[in-house]
Amino acid sequence: MTTETGTLYGVGLGPGDPDLITRRAAKLIEGADVVAYPSLAGGDSFARAIAADLISPSAREIVIDLPMTKDRAPAQAAYDLGAQAISEVLDAGQDVVALCEGDPFFYGSFMYLHARLTPKYRVEVVPGVTSVTACAALAGLPLAARNESMTILPGPLEDFALTERIRAADTLVIMKVGRHLRRLRALLTHEGLLDGAIYVERASLPNQRILPLTEAPDEAPYFSMILVTKGADPWL
Amino acid sequence: MTTETGTLYGVGLGPGDPDLITRRAAKLIEGADVVAYPSLAGGDSFARAIAADLISPSAREIVIDLPMTKDRAPAQAAYDLGAQAISEVLDAGQDVVALCEGDPFFYGSFMYLHARLTPKYRVEVVPGVTSVTACAALAGLPLAARNESMTILPGPLEDFALTERIRAADTLVIMKVGRHLRRLRALLTHEGLLDGAIYVERASLPNQRILPLTEAPDEAPYFSMILVTKGADPWL
Repeated sequence: MTTETGTLYGVGLGPGDPDLITRRAAKLIEGADVVAYPSLAGGDSFARAIAADLISPSAREIVIDLPMTKDRAPAQAAYDLGAQAISEVLDAGQDVVALCEGDPFFYGSFMYLHARLTPKYRVEVVPGVTSVTACAALAGLPLAARNESMTILPGPLEDFALTERIRAADTLVIMKVGRHLRRLRALLTHEGLLDGAIYVERASLPNQRILPLTEAPDEAPYFSMILVTKGADPWL
Repeated sequence: MTTETGTLYGVGLGPGDPDLITRRAAKLIEGADVVAYPSLAGGDSFARAIAADLISPSAREIVIDLPMTKDRAPAQAAYDLGAQAISEVLDAGQDVVALCEGDPFFYGSFMYLHARLTPKYRVEVVPGVTSVTACAALAGLPLAARNESMTILPGPLEDFALTERIRAADTLVIMKVGRHLRRLRALLTHEGLLDGAIYVERASLPNQRILPLTEAPDEAPYFSMILVTKGADPWL
């Protein structure tokens, strides 16, 4: 007798406010017998914190503890281990709901599980609200209309790679600003884009901050972002 | 005696599946005495259809009927009228929940109301799941990881504007494909990006379609999208 394998759900939780979880994600988490999520270097899991009110007390929790190293191999090994634990549950015919901050396929931790577990298992991805539109909502800043383009750039990129892409974009979103803030501010100043640039950190969380980039702190948290819109018509 | 003015909520509904509405949006719509939404040329409203199960039968509905014209002035006039009707409700001290497909500030209809009603009124924007990540989720296609950049381009842009931006991007999302499909496919072929390009139409709706771009129909609906990822490491 063979057991049918379970389904892996990769569920986006949105930027941090539990109210920005979708109804589909909420139902899946509430009904889950097994949840999986990443944590950082033995600390609390941000993903788990967002979904905390939805996780059943009886649910089994698979924690993928990611080391804080510059070398990627230890994190890869942690995802290998997590994928192994998840595959054992799926093989036994149970579903697993993997929790993911933001959206699973947009710089999301779920991509590392997806790469390891698809196509062997049935995988369903539930999209989530990204920090990009959450930051724009908080800042009251429309991102793109009509035929405007928008480019999303990770802050750690080298200056030359950023500059080329910044020049080609109508609207610019720079993510993962963190310790790159001063360099990014200098680069945007050089490109004539400092005025009107908005800095947002920890969007949708109780300690969120929204400031003109000129007033942003030199030391930004990892979850921070810069938004630049190049003179869209305010009346659209 | 003066009445305190009401709050305008601009609420993102996600790509179409009512289950992809956030909990915050659902609560606001369920509690709304007045909702506003766009419709197209006297037809049904897609925004209203997404939120239909949440709208109270006793709610007042403000319909902003947009004409299907190439000239933008008639649509601008329709938004002027809608903004006027909404401001009368807000001035009377009542809140208005404006429904918006996708995310309000990401090619969303709400931007046109926002431009007219802020800063005179208190406005809160509730971000929604965008069609971009919904399409990626359906296609099983991770969009961007680590230091990859991503560019979102409207299909109606001219070839020269598209080409420049396509070359600078790691991941490409082309929206509003519609009648531009053949031209876009030729352009992507010329850029060596046809293989692996994915076509998605009506993401998250019952009649959704996900195909390799090579198999996409020559006549695509307006709500269609092309996704291109340039060789990200599958093991991340």
